[in-house]
Amino acid sequence: MNEKIKLLEVFDNAYPNRDYLVIHEFPEFTSVCPKTGQPDFAKLTIKYIPDKLCIELKSLKFYLNSYRNDGIYFESVTNKILDDLVEACHPRHMAIKAEFNVRGGIGSTVEVEYKGKN
Amino acid sequence: MNEKIKLLEVFDNAYPNRDYLVIHEFPEFTSVCPKTGQPDFAKLTIKYIPDKLCIELKSLKFYLNSYRNDGIYFESVTNKILDDLVEACHPRHMAIKAEFNVRGGIGSTVEVEYKGKN
Amino acid sequence: MNEKIKLLEVFDNAYPNRDYLVIHEFPEFTSVCPKTGQPDFAKLTIKYIPDKLCIELKSLKFYLNSYRNDGIYFESVTNKILDDLVEACHPRHMAIKAEFNVRGGIGSTVEVEYKGKN
Amino acid sequence: MNEKIKLLEVFDNAYPNRDYLVIHEFPEFTSVCPKTGQPDFAKLTIKYIPDKLCIELKSLKFYLNSYRNDGIYFESVTNKILDDLVEACHPRHMAIKAEFNVRGGIGSTVEVEYKGKN
Amino acid sequence: MNEKIKLLEVFDNAYPNRDYLVIHEFPEFTSVCPKTGQPDFAKLTIKYIPDKLCIELKSLKFYLNSYRNDGIYFESVTNKILDDLVEACHPRHMAIKAEFNVRGGIGSTVEVEYKGKN
Amino acid sequence: MNEKIKLLEVFDNAYPNRDYLVIHEFPEFTSVCPKTGQPDFAKLTIKYIPDKLCIELKSLKFYLNSYRNDGIYFESVTNKILDDLVEACHPRHMAIKAEFNVRGGIGSTVEVEYKGKN
Amino acid sequence: MNEKIKLLEVFDNAYPNRDYLVIHEFPEFTSVCPKTGQPDFAKLTIKYIPDKLCIELKSLKFYLNSYRNDGIYFESVTNKILDDLVEACHPRHMAIKAEFNVRGGIGSTVEVEYKGKN
Amino acid sequence: MNEKIKLLEVFDNAYPNRDYLVIHEFPEFTSVCPKTGQPDFAKLTIKYIPDKLCIELKSLKFYLNSYRNDGIYFESVTNKILDDLVEACHPRHMAIKAEFNVRGGIGSTVEVEYKGKN
Amino acid sequence: MNEKIKLLEVFDNAYPNRDYLVIHEFPEFTSVCPKTGQPDFAKLTIKYIPDKLCIELKSLKFYLNSYRNDGIYFESVTNKILDDLVEACHPRHMAIKAEFNVRGGIGSTVEVEYKGKN
Amino acid sequence: MNEKIKLLEVFDNAYPNRDYLVIHEFPEFTSVCPKTGQPDFAKLTIKYIPDKLCIELKSLKFYLNSYRNDGIYFESVTNKILDDLVEACHPRHMAIKAEFNVRGGIGSTVEVEYKGKN
Repeated sequence: MNEKIKLLEVFDNAYPNRDYLVIHEFPEFTSVCPKTGQPDFAKLTIKYIPDKLCIELKSLKFYLNSYRNDGIYFESVTNKILDDLVEACHPRHMAIKAEFNVRGGIGSTVEVEYKGKN
Repeated sequence: MNEKIKLLEVFDNAYPNRDYLVIHEFPEFTSVCPKTGQPDFAKLTIKYIPDKLCIELKSLKFYLNSYRNDGIYFESVTNKILDDLVEACHPRHMAIKAEFNVRGGIGSTVEVEYKGKN
Repeated sequence: MNEKIKLLEVFDNAYPNRDYLVIHEFPEFTSVCPKTGQPDFAKLTIKYIPDKLCIELKSLKFYLNSYRNDGIYFESVTNKILDDLVEACHPRHMAIKAEFNVRGGIGSTVEVEYKGKN
Repeated sequence: MNEKIKLLEVFDNAYPNRDYLVIHEFPEFTSVCPKTGQPDFAKLTIKYIPDKLCIELKSLKFYLNSYRNDGIYFESVTNKILDDLVEACHPRHMAIKAEFNVRGGIGSTVEVEYKGKN
Repeated sequence: MNEKIKLLEVFDNAYPNRDYLVIHEFPEFTSVCPKTGQPDFAKLTIKYIPDKLCIELKSLKFYLNSYRNDGIYFESVTNKILDDLVEACHPRHMAIKAEFNVRGGIGSTVEVEYKGKN
Repeated sequence: MNEKIKLLEVFDNAYPNRDYLVIHEFPEFTSVCPKTGQPDFAKLTIKYIPDKLCIELKSLKFYLNSYRNDGIYFESVTNKILDDLVEACHPRHMAIKAEFNVRGGIGSTVEVEYKGKN
Repeated sequence: MNEKIKLLEVFDNAYPNRDYLVIHEFPEFTSVCPKTGQPDFAKLTIKYIPDKLCIELKSLKFYLNSYRNDGIYFESVTNKILDDLVEACHPRHMAIKAEFNVRGGIGSTVEVEYKGKN
Repeated sequence: MNEKIKLLEVFDNAYPNRDYLVIHEFPEFTSVCPKTGQPDFAKLTIKYIPDKLCIELKSLKFYLNSYRNDGIYFESVTNKILDDLVEACHPRHMAIKAEFNVRGGIGSTVEVEYKGKN
Repeated sequence: MNEKIKLLEVFDNAYPNRDYLVIHEFPEFTSVCPKTGQPDFAKLTIKYIPDKLCIELKSLKFYLNSYRNDGIYFESVTNKILDDLVEACHPRHMAIKAEFNVRGGIGSTVEVEYKGKN
Repeated sequence: MNEKIKLLEVFDNAYPNRDYLVIHEFPEFTSVCPKTGQPDFAKLTIKYIPDKLCIELKSLKFYLNSYRNDGIYFESVTNKILDDLVEACHPRHMAIKAEFNVRGGIGSTVEVEYKGKN
C-alpha cells in the first residue's frame, strides 16, 4: 500500500469554472541511487490545471521530502510522483519535469504528462 | 461589495480598430499569507488586448498595492485580480501570470486567462 | 499634416521576389510623459517584410529621435510609429514592440502589428 | 523606547574563538515612503563576525518584516537596522547593504558598517 | 561489424503504457578530426521516448567515450550515434543534437531525428 | 560572373535518406558600408537540411571572409550569401540570419529563407 | 551663473557621526552631442559619503534631466555633475561613473572622484 | 569520538615545495534543521593550500554526504567541517564557504578560515 | 615613419587639475594573422588618465580601423597601439587590454600598461 | 626524459623592455583519470609576463593536446604544465588555473604560480 500519498493534502479550488495553470518549482528534490547508495538531486517542476482540488503547498513539500532516503531510479520516481499527485487532486492536466544533476558527466531530465480523464 | 475595483481608472483606447497588446510587469506585488500572517511576494505580468478602454497605469499601481495587508491565497488573488481588471476595462483578451517567491523551498506560479466575451 | 513622416527615407528592395525579414532594434527611444512632463524611455523593436521599399537606417534614427520632446502616451506613440512606417514603405508585414522603462514600479510593453494590405 | 529590537533573538556562538563571517540576504524587505505613503522595496545583505552571540534567523525575519508599514527614509532605515542588530548581538564587525528598487528612474543603495567596539 | 554498439546496455521501461521523455545531456563528447588529427569537442543532447527499453546511463557514457580517438566528421558521428541508440533501445522517438566547439571561427551544430517505426 | 562562389567546396552527404539539420554560426563576418566606407560586423547563422551535398567548413570560412573589403548593404549581402550557398549545395531547406552590430544606435538583423525546389 | 545647481535640494543627514555610503544609479541620463546634435545616452552611478547633508532624490532626477537638450562632451558633463553635486551637499567623498552608449562602435566610460576637503 | 573524520582519506602532495591552491566546489551538501527536522541545502566551496597531504576526492564526497541525516545548525556545520578537514590534511591554509538555500525568505552564507599553524 | 599615428586627433582636457579616468571599449578590432593571412578579431579596452589632452573619439575609430588589412601578431599590435596612443595624448597613465577571439581552441588576451613619465 | 616539452615552440618577445601580460584560455583540456581510466576535462587559463621569449600559440595547443590519453591527477598535471612552460619560455611570472569538470558531484580547481627567478 502506498504510504507516501497520505502525506498529500488538498483544498477546494475556489475558481473551478476557469481553466488555469498552477506551477510549483522544487529545486531541492533528493533521493538515493538504488545501485550505488549515493544521493541524487533534481529540480522538479510540477504544472497542473486544477479541477475541483488544489494541492496544499506544505504537504507537497513533506511528500517530496519523503523520498530523501529512498533508493529509486530517475525514470521511476518521476512517473510515480505524477501518479500520486494525479490520484490526490484529480487535475484536468498535469506535467512533471525532473532535471537531475550531472552523474558520470551526464545530466538527465525526465518529463512525464497526464492528459486528463477522457 | 468590491471596494478595491473602485481604485482602477481607465481611459479611451485611441486605436480601437487594431488588435494590439499591452503588457504591464509589476515585480513588487505583496500580500499576506492567510495561514501564517507572514508576507508573500510576487512578480505580476498582466497582458491584455484593449477594446474600448485602457487601464490607467498609476491607478493600477494603487489597486495592486491595496492587497499589501490582505490575507489571501496564491490561486485566489491571481484569479480575483483577473476578474477585477476584466470588469474595469472589458478587454478583448487578458492573461495574468503571478510568480511567487520561494516558500518552504517551493516557488509557485499561477497563470490565468480571460478569453473574451464570446 | 504629419511632419515627422517626411523625415523617413526609403530605398528600393533589391530582392523583392523573396519574403524576408528585417529587424531594427533601437534601445534609445525617448519621449515625454504628457501628464508629468518627465522623460520616458523605451527599447523599440521594428520587424518588417519589405515589399518594394526598405527603410533607410539613418533616416529611421532621425525619425525616432524627433519624438524626443513630444508629450505622448505609451499606447499612442507605438501605434503612431507603426502607422508612419507602414505609410512610408508599404511593407508586406510589420510589427513593433516598445518596451518602456519602469514607472511607478511598473514596466510596460506595447506590441502592435500590421498584417498587410489584403 | 525601541519596541522592534525586542523581536530579535540571539543564541550562543559555538565557535567564539574563531573570527568567521555570517551573511544573511533578505530580498523581501519593504517599508513605506514617508512622503508619498507608497511602498518601497529593498534587498538587504547583512554580514557580521559574531562575538559571543549569533542572531536567530526566524526572529531576524520577524524583526525585518516589522518595518512593513512604517514610513521611513532609505538612509535612516539602513542605519537604524545596523544600530539594532549591533545592540542585539554585539558583533565584532557588521556591515549592511540595502539595495532599493528604482524610484523615479533612480535605483539607490545604502551601505553602513560597524567596525567593532574599540 | 559494429563493435561500439555492444557497449550499450538497456533495462526494462517500468512505465511502458505512458509516452514520456528522457533527456541526457553530455557536454564532454570528444572525437578526432579525420583531416587534421586534432581533437573535436561537442555537447550532445539525446532526447527519446522509450518504448520497452531504457538506455542504461553508465553504459551510455562508455559508449560515447569510445569515440575519443576515432577520426570522424561532425555530420557522420551524429547520424551514427542516432542509428546505434535506436538499434539498442528501439525508442518511439529519438532526437540528437550535437553542438561542436568553434573551429576556424565557426561553431557547428548537427540535429538528427528518428521518428519511430511506422 | 560570380567569383566568390568558386571558393565554396562541397562533399557528399553520407546520410541522404534522412532529413537532418546542420547549423553553422560565424560571429566574425565583416564587410564595408558602401556609403561611408566604414566596416560593418555581423554574426551569421546558417541552417540547412542537406540533400546530396554538404558544405565544407573551411571553404565556407574562406567564402565568408572574401566579403571583408566589399561595400555592400545589410539586406543585399544576406540575400546574396543565401543565393550562393543554395547554388553550391542544393539543400532541401536553408535559412540565414545576419545580426549586425549597432550603427547610429540601431542594431539590425536580416533573416532570409530558401524553402526548397518545389 | 550656474542655473542647474539651483534644482538640487538637500536634507540633513540623520547619522552624521558614521561614515556610510549612498549610491544612486541613473540609467536614463541623456544629453546631446555638441558636434552632431544627435542624442547621447549614459548610465550614471553616483556614490558619496554624506557629511552634514544628503541629496534629495527627486531633485537629483530633475537636475540630471535638465541636461536633456544641452550639447556637452562626455568628459565635461561628468566632471561638471561632480562639481555641482559636491557644491550642493559638501560630501566627505564622492565618485561618479558615466557609462555612455556605443557611438561609432565605441562605448565610452568616464570616472571622476572628489576626495574630500582636507 | 569523531566518527565522520575516519571517512576522509589523504594522499601525498607531489609538489610540496610550491604553495598552490586546490578548490573543491560541492553544490549538493544537505543536512537537517535541528529545530524543524526539515532538510537544509548548501553549496560548499573548500579552498586550501596543501602541505604534505592532499584530500582524496571520493572520500571527501563520502565525508560530506555523511551529514545527510544529521541535525545541525548552519554556523556549526561549517566550522566543524573546517576542523575535520584541517585535522585530516594539515594544510598551510584552508577556507570554507557554505551558501545555504533560502529559508523564510533569507539566504544565509557562512565563511570560515584556518590560517595555518603559526 | 609611422603613418597611422597621424590619424589620431586630440582635444584639450577641460579638467586638467583632476585625475580622472576615460575608458573606450572597441569590440570591433580586426587585423590579419601574419602567418596564415586569415583575419583576427579582438575586443579592445583602452583606459587612460588624461593630462593636457584627450583622444578624439572618431579619430580613434579611424586609427583602430586602419589595422584592418595589416598582418601583425597579437602581442605586437597591442604594444604598438599603446605606444601610438601615448605618443598622441601624453596621458598620466594608460592601459590597454586586447581580448582576441578563439584560434585553434585557444582564446588569447594581451594586457599592456604605460605608467606615466617619471 | 621529458618528451612533451619538445612540442613547445617559442619566439622572440618584440617588447622585452615592458612588463606586459599574456593570457591564453584553453577550455578543451582533457586527460584520463589514473584510477578509473575515464576521461577528465578542464578549462586551463595560462597567464604570464614574457621575458625574452613568448610561447607560440599552435605549439601550445599541440603540447596541451598531448595529455589526451595520459593518466594523471588534477594536482599533478597542473603543476607539471607550469614547470614545462616555465622551462620553455623563462617568463618573469606565470600562473595557471585548471578548472576541472564535476566528478562525483564535486568540481575541482587547481591554481599554481611561478613567481620568477629571484
